[in-house]
Amino acid sequence: MSNSSRADGRTPNQLRPISFEANIAPHATGSVLVSFGHTRVICGATIEARVPGWMRAQNVSGGWLTAEYSMLPYSTHDRKQRDSSRGKLDGRSVEIQRLIGRSLRAVIDLQKLGQHTLWLDCDVLQADGGTRTASITGAYIAARLAVQTLLDSGKLKENPIKDSIGAVSVGIVDGVALLDLPYTEDRDAEVDANIVMTGGGQFVEVQSSGEESTFSPDQLTAMLGLATGGLKEIAALQTAFLTKQLLGNIGSLGSLGS
Amino acid sequence: MSNSSRADGRTPNQLRPISFEANIAPHATGSVLVSFGHTRVICGATIEARVPGWMRAQNVSGGWLTAEYSMLPYSTHDRKQRDSSRGKLDGRSVEIQRLIGRSLRAVIDLQKLGQHTLWLDCDVLQADGGTRTASITGAYIAARLAVQTLLDSGKLKENPIKDSIGAVSVGIVDGVALLDLPYTEDRDAEVDANIVMTGGGQFVEVQSSGEESTFSPDQLTAMLGLATGGLKEIAALQTAFLTKQLLGNIGSLGSLGS
Amino acid sequence: MSNSSRADGRTPNQLRPISFEANIAPHATGSVLVSFGHTRVICGATIEARVPGWMRAQNVSGGWLTAEYSMLPYSTHDRKQRDSSRGKLDGRSVEIQRLIGRSLRAVIDLQKLGQHTLWLDCDVLQADGGTRTASITGAYIAARLAVQTLLDSGKLKENPIKDSIGAVSVGIVDGVALLDLPYTEDRDAEVDANIVMTGGGQFVEVQSSGEESTFSPDQLTAMLGLATGGLKEIAALQTAFLTKQLLGNIGSLGSLGS
Amino acid sequence: MSNSSRADGRTPNQLRPISFEANIAPHATGSVLVSFGHTRVICGATIEARVPGWMRAQNVSGGWLTAEYSMLPYSTHDRKQRDSSRGKLDGRSVEIQRLIGRSLRAVIDLQKLGQHTLWLDCDVLQADGGTRTASITGAYIAARLAVQTLLDSGKLKENPIKDSIGAVSVGIVDGVALLDLPYTEDRDAEVDANIVMTGGGQFVEVQSSGEESTFSPDQLTAMLGLATGGLKEIAALQTAFLTKQLLGNIGSLGSLGS
Amino acid sequence: MSNSSRADGRTPNQLRPISFEANIAPHATGSVLVSFGHTRVICGATIEARVPGWMRAQNVSGGWLTAEYSMLPYSTHDRKQRDSSRGKLDGRSVEIQRLIGRSLRAVIDLQKLGQHTLWLDCDVLQADGGTRTASITGAYIAARLAVQTLLDSGKLKENPIKDSIGAVSVGIVDGVALLDLPYTEDRDAEVDANIVMTGGGQFVEVQSSGEESTFSPDQLTAMLGLATGGLKEIAALQTAFLTKQLLGNIGSLGSLGS
Amino acid sequence: MSNSSRADGRTPNQLRPISFEANIAPHATGSVLVSFGHTRVICGATIEARVPGWMRAQNVSGGWLTAEYSMLPYSTHDRKQRDSSRGKLDGRSVEIQRLIGRSLRAVIDLQKLGQHTLWLDCDVLQADGGTRTASITGAYIAARLAVQTLLDSGKLKENPIKDSIGAVSVGIVDGVALLDLPYTEDRDAEVDANIVMTGGGQFVEVQSSGEESTFSPDQLTAMLGLATGGLKEIAALQTAFLTKQLLGNIGSLGSLGS
Repeated sequence: MSNSSRADGRTPNQLRPISFEANIAPHATGSVLVSFGHTRVICGATIEARVPGWMRAQNVSGGWLTAEYSMLPYSTHDRKQRDSSRGKLDGRSVEIQRLIGRSLRAVIDLQKLGQHTLWLDCDVLQADGGTRTASITGAYIAARLAVQTLLDSGKLKENPIKDSIGAVSVGIVDGVALLDLPYTEDRDAEVDANIVMTGGGQFVEVQSSGEESTFSPDQLTAMLGLATGGLKEIAALQTAFLTKQLLGNIGSLGSLGS
Repeated sequence: MSNSSRADGRTPNQLRPISFEANIAPHATGSVLVSFGHTRVICGATIEARVPGWMRAQNVSGGWLTAEYSMLPYSTHDRKQRDSSRGKLDGRSVEIQRLIGRSLRAVIDLQKLGQHTLWLDCDVLQADGGTRTASITGAYIAARLAVQTLLDSGKLKENPIKDSIGAVSVGIVDGVALLDLPYTEDRDAEVDANIVMTGGGQFVEVQSSGEESTFSPDQLTAMLGLATGGLKEIAALQTAFLTKQLLGNIGSLGSLGS
Repeated sequence: MSNSSRADGRTPNQLRPISFEANIAPHATGSVLVSFGHTRVICGATIEARVPGWMRAQNVSGGWLTAEYSMLPYSTHDRKQRDSSRGKLDGRSVEIQRLIGRSLRAVIDLQKLGQHTLWLDCDVLQADGGTRTASITGAYIAARLAVQTLLDSGKLKENPIKDSIGAVSVGIVDGVALLDLPYTEDRDAEVDANIVMTGGGQFVEVQSSGEESTFSPDQLTAMLGLATGGLKEIAALQTAFLTKQLLGNIGSLGSLGS
Repeated sequence: MSNSSRADGRTPNQLRPISFEANIAPHATGSVLVSFGHTRVICGATIEARVPGWMRAQNVSGGWLTAEYSMLPYSTHDRKQRDSSRGKLDGRSVEIQRLIGRSLRAVIDLQKLGQHTLWLDCDVLQADGGTRTASITGAYIAARLAVQTLLDSGKLKENPIKDSIGAVSVGIVDGVALLDLPYTEDRDAEVDANIVMTGGGQFVEVQSSGEESTFSPDQLTAMLGLATGGLKEIAALQTAFLTKQLLGNIGSLGSLGS
Repeated sequence: MSNSSRADGRTPNQLRPISFEANIAPHATGSVLVSFGHTRVICGATIEARVPGWMRAQNVSGGWLTAEYSMLPYSTHDRKQRDSSRGKLDGRSVEIQRLIGRSLRAVIDLQKLGQHTLWLDCDVLQADGGTRTASITGAYIAARLAVQTLLDSGKLKENPIKDSIGAVSVGIVDGVALLDLPYTEDRDAEVDANIVMTGGGQFVEVQSSGEESTFSPDQLTAMLGLATGGLKEIAALQTAFLTKQLLGNIGSLGSLGS
Repeated sequence: MSNSSRADGRTPNQLRPISFEANIAPHATGSVLVSFGHTRVICGATIEARVPGWMRAQNVSGGWLTAEYSMLPYSTHDRKQRDSSRGKLDGRSVEIQRLIGRSLRAVIDLQKLGQHTLWLDCDVLQADGGTRTASITGAYIAARLAVQTLLDSGKLKENPIKDSIGAVSVGIVDGVALLDLPYTEDRDAEVDANIVMTGGGQFVEVQSSGEESTFSPDQLTAMLGLATGGLKEIAALQTAFLTKQLLGNIGSLGSLGS
């Protein structure tokens, strides 16, 4: 496979066009529609002024963050049955929403969140590969916008977000490491990895799986390299977008994550 | 309450601004984002080339149409728990999705649909009153767009839609009949009604309820009158939108519903 | 279709024989077996001396009323699977029990109910059309009997029931409006409506549906006229029955509903 | 405790008044309202012309019999939550419906039932102790009436019921063995037993439990003796009732069970 | 059938080899692997320092005991689907865990248990008939070991166990009463009984069922005789095992159950 | 933290004692009790001679492999509620059983498995950290033993297992990378990783998470290095154990995985 052979004409280390549309769901405390190419996810962050029952019962201080992920039934070419019709989440959705929650908790100081629960809802409007990484990337934006609302209203004194966070998929297709896989590449990949990284370049999650296949340490290194490059670009896009969104409110951003 | 006293400045017989945005979910066969003021609903129509098991088992000919309705968790000011987290639909959602399905079946010739199932998914992105009537109004648009796709591809020979269909809410607030209630009026209404009507002016559903209250025959007449006027406007808006959408494909529309 | 053509010989505006048998379930606070022709429903009203958790949590004053509706498995010609075997209510039952609860709440002053929950259970023993309207008609009787028990024991100081309430079905069969449809007429009806009305002649619910069909304003007017006539007779039957039941206890009834 | 000390004045070996009311649910193939004192159970037998999927899959010949048991919510002094509201059967109901099914299968030749499923539904209208034994006693009546309907219509060639079956409770209260316990005795019993026996005097089920207590072999012998006496009377009452019910149809009964 | 004809060479009144292996699950408060021939059950007793919510709500004093029973999926020759995959317990498991709980409660003084809940978990590792009776026999051992741990640590002042308890199956196969049936005999049995008895020779549970068959009083007597003999041996084996286990800790046992 | 400071005295790159006990569940096709220190997991492999319905429906050739993971309630110090009592799996269990299944599928040629389903059940008997990695390590052993049974009986012609597979946890505790974490280290770890590798040294899964923390590329490298070393030892232990187990049957093993 040559560099020029990706179906959409990208080079192996090139991201799909990424965009953010703020305030897609105005009743959320913060929200964004994030697009990675044809993959589009609605990310809503809602802040409730209370913590889960188990935290109250155990007298745990600080706040909580929880994520939910769902594919809208018309997001896939063949209609996907609703989880509520089946009466439970499928295993894949459970795994993804645990990943989103864990990732965001890594960059949020729950003590500084006070007695609040931050809900991060990610609903896939259109699925074309990389929905979990787009969800994490968008959930950070939604969370940051929601936090700003609370800072502006005085309900939070201090920004609990320690750093920005983004995610991207990488994989091995026909032996070649590729960045940001759409559905058709993902379907054919021998190895599929999802990498979550902070704006500061620290890993949060590394998940690499060979479904019916295996991979060498060198292949892992190649994938991590591609991902690191892509994640720098993603962090820059997030910062640029948030700067524009928040500038009217807060003058100068300094570090967005702090 | 004077005519000028509605919080948003409307007269009692005035609709909120209504708009449609086609193709919001491109993987659906047809889709639209419908807005009635701040109420926004994603309507997706997906056509599967098979019918439910019970129809096959009983050798029922023709196709089937089924609707699902859900509020996205960030659609309300207080986050709404997902049905899938609770493991079942709430009673209100069950009632609404049955209403949507029944309404659309009234204007679709299931025999002409052939061995297809038409799924109508309505997901509320923002809730400000009238989500069920906006859903029906948008579901018709999505269904019509989906049918066109099948006509264009030759999978359907004939349009199974017999007429357009729209819906609107009416209510009695402080003794005055009002058209198209937003949340704050709906919350205070003594009587709440939802009327579904064809483009040809026939009723499909009349549902009027006095929750903790009752209403007189005269009040019912007043509400039906307001609704009929509003529904004529809605039918005109639907026709105008579909004409623009479909014109490129089919030249001249004639009657959209036939 | 001529007036004489109903299978059971009734005229279009004639009710089926209606009867009530009190105390069918003596462990309930009040109970009745209501019959509309072959349709027979056990209605039990049970009063608990506490209110739901959400009312306590939100400090809502007054009492609560909730209804449950179920078809016994042997109530239909083909055995109906139990909801508990399927693990959930079917959509139709959900819709009906919400209707019953909403209707009864319209005539009950929940403040005067005090810190009580009034449960209204409607179990269909035999189904021959109109089970939801028979349920509402019987549930009122059961509720009134239960309230009397509490008045007699001093647990309630004042009757919280503001008016009587009854319900009846109407429909259009072969173009003719008919009152109180048995199963065979209901099955063939183009339009099916259920009307709930107080003893004082105010509407509580108007639900008219054209399943796979539509109806004109004139047809709606005809159905409402038939229903209003039938509901006056039903109110008179309810009053006569309750007068006989309660006379021994309370001497003279005055208005039953007040 | 002396013989004269039972609250209802019965001697230790005396049954409560037992009665049967046929055809309580006319849409069932056979039905009866059975009363043991204040305990009243609706027993419906419905015959479906097919067998369960697992029998078809495994090519098992003959028919099937299955029982369901439920307490109506108003059958107890404190309203019992519906199984369908909780989403599942409680353990006690599961245990009882398995007992009813197992008992009836002991006297029915499933081969002679042909490709039919016999459903036995027992719904408790009023609970005052002994609901499971009243259910078995009534389920036999309902089954026998249902079988007769099939014999009369020619759908069955031969009666598959080999013998009659009845059941009764016995217990030890204050050290004394008592027959047919109402709720107040059952609540205070040290040992509680349920005995199922054929008309021919063979045991079908012996279940004796010391909840928070134990019992001696002599006490077991005493309880079995009381039960055997009571079950002879019950068998005679069943035969008398069925003879009267079936005589019009079949002239002379011979042995009801054969 | 002659005495010598049991497939494993036992006489009708002979138990299978019974053994106990303590501490199979060291994180439980007490645990044992019990074997009756090829039937092997892991019994874990866990003591929690709190009682169920309903006991606190109703101010019931003393402790609680509850049992759970499950077959591991690889315990049977054909893999058994997990209850958690089906979303609920099957009816047989519900019945068995209720039996285990009821049996153990008969020999435990819940008042002396204090504000503790004693959980008894029985997981079948290998099923070859008699899993419920092996579970009861082992659950007693696990409970006794758990109680000792609490006595040793001073969390309990007094042993709440009043007597030992054991259980065994008996049945009629080809007309002959047999003790302790393995799967192949159980499958062919006309009558199947499970008997639970204290070390002192009192009955706790007698459950005898003729699935698709019946049994005479004489046959019941024969089965009870066999069971009583077997249960004496089982009690002796339990005492011997516990004496060895506990001797190091408590010097001399006196009566194990007191 | 110095090398000598691990609570159990191990060096950072030292595994806990690992052992295997074959045939723990003889009704499974293959089974093993695997221990990593105090962590003990029962792994059962059962082979069914059919494939899932969706494979038959879609005409997918070859076999299937599926895994289930559960913690027995007494495996943890505080009793863990059963999944079946809660009616569903918790999210962590879902994630783990998906990991186990995916890992094993990477080394099994499903085409060579023929029309069989290989069930891998992992039930944790005692939990002390690393239950998922112990499960994968043991599941491979159980699968290999089950495959041998089918090879010996001629039901399989060829070994479908391409290579051995093992797994181990690594983590960063107080800044130091440690191999094979018990519960106390796992609880305190800043970063937690699970690595799955073939006997041939290829990665199958790399999952590294910073719960409420992050990690650098250097830390990832250190963890991968530790894991690779540990996994070589684990592969050797697996080979040694299987060689001993299978030698009697097959003489000489050659490569176990091929």
